[in-house]
Amino acid sequence: MKQSFRALALLAAVFMLQASQAHPTQTRGEEEVDYRQSLYTVMAGNFHPLGAMAEGKMPFNAAEAKLRAERVAFLVPMLKEAFPADSNGVGHTAAKPEIWKDKDGFSKALQLLIDKSAALAVAANTGDADKVKAAVQETGKACKNCHDKFKVKDKD
Amino acid sequence: MKQSFRALALLAAVFMLQASQAHPTQTRGEEEVDYRQSLYTVMAGNFHPLGAMAEGKMPFNAAEAKLRAERVAFLVPMLKEAFPADSNGVGHTAAKPEIWKDKDGFSKALQLLIDKSAALAVAANTGDADKVKAAVQETGKACKNCHDKFKVKDKD
Repeated sequence: MKQSFRALALLAAVFMLQASQAHPTQTRGEEEVDYRQSLYTVMAGNFHPLGAMAEGKMPFNAAEAKLRAERVAFLVPMLKEAFPADSNGVGHTAAKPEIWKDKDGFSKALQLLIDKSAALAVAANTGDADKVKAAVQETGKACKNCHDKFKVKDKD
Repeated sequence: MKQSFRALALLAAVFMLQASQAHPTQTRGEEEVDYRQSLYTVMAGNFHPLGAMAEGKMPFNAAEAKLRAERVAFLVPMLKEAFPADSNGVGHTAAKPEIWKDKDGFSKALQLLIDKSAALAVAANTGDADKVKAAVQETGKACKNCHDKFKVKDKD
């Protein structure tokens, strides 16, 4: 009993620490925007070296490409839950209201990115630089397709 | 040739869009801190429902626990690259300089979290609520162990 209480107290302390990652006065919508933007930052940070390899700005490294592509393919489907309705128009978001108005269109654009990033991971698994480059370009097009329709231009 | 040029131009445009996720005037160190904090935000966002289930604040859901635990176990090892030396003391970081002074101590604390979050994913795969609760508590202790030593208190 005593041990169970101690464990719960510890867990509560951990959540307080966890919560302190986010701004203490954040609303639910602001937290959701923060989570979404963080997810994009982590995705972009891992897509970036793939793009640099595809553009020849970084030497091709099969192991690095595989690692990065697997991360991108793992992270992208998490976007499905990253646009809850109450994050629409909250704070410094670049997400257009069209995301929630045209749910089918947005789902389709997101699914295209999910499919292309899954194909990117498959390509990276072959270790073939040309296949990776082509798959990076396809993934990049799927990013751009969604940004063109659903992201405010020139906004973080 | 023409097609290849078009593909490269498109890719360059995509990277400009990607880059616009980050603040355009960010230094390399600031970008690294932004990436690190984003990674913690995504981890915390996925650990939170596991904690809520372990604390009884949310009904146990085996599928949800499995999904969240797999994400945490996938994301945590990414922290290994998230503390490059030039992100030490940059901007609004809560990372103590001890991370870079006591590299072995930090690596050990991080490895404990990696091991515990891997065990959490194994536990969540069983679908057993008690096993998940125990593994969440162990993971939480590993978070706290590292925060106590290497994170500035009461800072985002």
